Amino acid sequence: MKQTVGISELFEAKKSHELKELAAGLNPTDIAAEFENLTEQERATMFRSLPNDVAADVFSYMPSETQENLISLLTDPELSHIVNDLFLDDAVDFIEEMPANVVKRVLKNASEDTRKQINQLLQYQEDSAGSIMTTEYVDLKEDMTVESAFARIRAVGMDKETIYTCYVVDGKRVLDGVITVRTLLLAKSGDRVGDIMNRNPMYAATGDDREAVAELFQKYDLIALPVVDTGRHLVGIITVDDVMEVLEEENTEDFYKMAAVDPSDDAYLASGVFELAKKRIFWLMVLMVSAFFTGSIITRYEEMLALFPVLIAAVPMLMDTGGNAGCQSSTIIIRSLALGELGISDALRIFWKEVRVGALVGAALCATNIVFKWASGVDIRISAAIGASLFATVMLAKIAGSMLPLLAKALKLDPALMAAPIITTVVDAGGLMLYFRIAKLVMGIR
Amino acid sequence: MKQTVGISELFEAKKSHELKELAAGLNPTDIAAEFENLTEQERATMFRSLPNDVAADVFSYMPSETQENLISLLTDPELSHIVNDLFLDDAVDFIEEMPANVVKRVLKNASEDTRKQINQLLQYQEDSAGSIMTTEYVDLKEDMTVESAFARIRAVGMDKETIYTCYVVDGKRVLDGVITVRTLLLAKSGDRVGDIMNRNPMYAATGDDREAVAELFQKYDLIALPVVDTGRHLVGIITVDDVMEVLEEENTEDFYKMAAVDPSDDAYLASGVFELAKKRIFWLMVLMVSAFFTGSIITRYEEMLALFPVLIAAVPMLMDTGGNAGCQSSTIIIRSLALGELGISDALRIFWKEVRVGALVGAALCATNIVFKWASGVDIRISAAIGASLFATVMLAKIAGSMLPLLAKALKLDPALMAAPIITTVVDAGGLMLYFRIAKLVMGIR
Repeated sequence: MKQTVGISELFEAKKSHELKELAAGLNPTDIAAEFENLTEQERATMFRSLPNDVAADVFSYMPSETQENLISLLTDPELSHIVNDLFLDDAVDFIEEMPANVVKRVLKNASEDTRKQINQLLQYQEDSAGSIMTTEYVDLKEDMTVESAFARIRAVGMDKETIYTCYVVDGKRVLDGVITVRTLLLAKSGDRVGDIMNRNPMYAATGDDREAVAELFQKYDLIALPVVDTGRHLVGIITVDDVMEVLEEENTEDFYKMAAVDPSDDAYLASGVFELAKKRIFWLMVLMVSAFFTGSIITRYEEMLALFPVLIAAVPMLMDTGGNAGCQSSTIIIRSLALGELGISDALRIFWKEVRVGALVGAALCATNIVFKWASGVDIRISAAIGASLFATVMLAKIAGSMLPLLAKALKLDPALMAAPIITTVVDAGGLMLYFRIAKLVMGIR
Repeated sequence: MKQTVGISELFEAKKSHELKELAAGLNPTDIAAEFENLTEQERATMFRSLPNDVAADVFSYMPSETQENLISLLTDPELSHIVNDLFLDDAVDFIEEMPANVVKRVLKNASEDTRKQINQLLQYQEDSAGSIMTTEYVDLKEDMTVESAFARIRAVGMDKETIYTCYVVDGKRVLDGVITVRTLLLAKSGDRVGDIMNRNPMYAATGDDREAVAELFQKYDLIALPVVDTGRHLVGIITVDDVMEVLEEENTEDFYKMAAVDPSDDAYLASGVFELAKKRIFWLMVLMVSAFFTGSIITRYEEMLALFPVLIAAVPMLMDTGGNAGCQSSTIIIRSLALGELGISDALRIFWKEVRVGALVGAALCATNIVFKWASGVDIRISAAIGASLFATVMLAKIAGSMLPLLAKALKLDPALMAAPIITTVVDAGGLMLYFRIAKLVMGIR
């Protein structure tokens, strides 16, 4: 796979005109990545020698630490250039990560128009459609001809994040329809926009959840989506590149939640030790205290264990296998819920499926276990008790693992919270209780 | 959020011309979803009454079971229409899911040109760039003017999956450059394509891994990417909608692997019980056998446990907390590796960070534990032994949880395999061994 060439040449070019020529042929993402390896002095020099239209683009691809460092090295007029050249949604993303004094300086150096629009975008809630939209798009009017529509695209299109879908609004900026450049290209130059546009476009409201917006993009293969306020006035658009970022973040959040870690927006290496510890301690503490309860179950059966100490040796195997079997089911169900492939209404079918899968898997594990124990010379009654408990634990794990995420969903909680750690804790307590009861029964202890 | 309207009207419309009119205003995704609720007879009737250009689109959004059912209801000429109208990559996706006899019938009814292209696409390896590309794109020549480029886009663009990026090839179809419709719109109509195109475009090779391609789309905010063969001849393009599907599938695969389930392409409810059990049993078996080893550690300390049965009660807590602490670290590292935010070269920094986080978290858990045990009247020496073991187990869990995924990566294995289940097994054995040694030491047993 070929990505781009000439980065090293860029940073070897001593003369500024050589640099400008080279930079024009490079990808902003790659130039931004290269800044990570530079000293402060080099960063400032290099940034100043980038062509104006490239500089803002490069800036938007830097991690926020580098952005903060870089603007501390720039003069106010230089800063002003960048802020005004940035795409508005990139400007907002950048400002949201900066400390208050930096935000103040940035906004002071923005043009009045830019400042107004940035302030408006900053108001939307963190996970809303409004927070990921940009206010830069091409708007058309119904009574334009195809020819005048193209003239408008040419006139304003240079600054706009996407020009391939245009938005048709009335005098009060109410969204009337959308029209793609493809439709415009295939139409006759005298056709009226209002006659060939899609009058029934999809749209999102500013307050919609950004995850639901991302699902819409996936379901309908969208490239861009208009965002309207409560009066159906067009206020911005969301583009597919931002949606891909949202999907990545939401997936990361799910991975973290399923591992009982509070999700974080910060990169691992950039996070402090206290911050990382804080994000992990809460759930560990809760789960540890729950495990005390599991321990107390063992205490209740101390006498039996003193008589048959071999029973203890099977505890780790029962706990681990129960935890793993439950984790398999909960992960499959949580992921299917997240993708919208399963819903609460499927609960009965899921239950019945997991019961049968649990029976199959449990029987196979139970048989293997009995053979192993028997081969290592364990009393057949004890082997049977362990085998039966394993089967029961796997059944319990499959049922709890599949049903608890659905229960969470029904209670409007996040199903991802019912992942491995919780399931393990539940199954451990239940499984050990079953184990000791079954052992008592088999060994004929009252 | 508004998606679309009128589905129910569509299925209430009795007269075929009403139906056609309504269908034109609806989204193919939604029409396809509605087919799930219809009987066979209704499916055939409804499908036949869809306008030709809509029918193929709707077909491509159906699950493969419905597709198979539907084409069994259609005549050969009807099938022929669909196959030739489908986008080529959708046709290939569909054919890959069909049984052999259906594939034969489908290919028999495709036009010769379509059949040739489908057969070519079917040859690419499952996870390769070639397998997700389409061979439908707009190609231009260097010496075309902007005006003639637009003429060509208009002439061929109707059938093409994306027209917004055009690919410039020479007489031998070698990729010379790319040019966007945006550039063309902003250029003068007499400009030569060769003078304004990007001569240094990114591209993928047919054999490149599709996950790497998806990362490229994310990194550079791409909408489409050309795919070339070993001679740099253009053979197809990949579009962002297919990439979003790849990302979703790869994330699902990671979730499954991390829960010790073999990944599956099939939907949960559509999968048989045996199939589901098969995908879970292998790892459960491996991990159960490993847990026998952990159990044998307990057996070695039976005498000490008979003297101090209270030591046993802490085993579930130590095992669960160790497993959870390790799972947190492994998940964070595996996800950061997958996103390219961390690499093997960061191993030392990660190690040092996890040691400090482990010390903080371990100390907090240890203190809580000692207070709890002390409050429940446990011997202070035993409380101390349990507390110290918990601290050591958490440290071990954090180090194993963070280092094992890096080790897997260094050995060119999938880091996701080193997730919760493996970490739990490793930490259980190590933690219990530490526990019994520490207890022996504290209790003064030789």
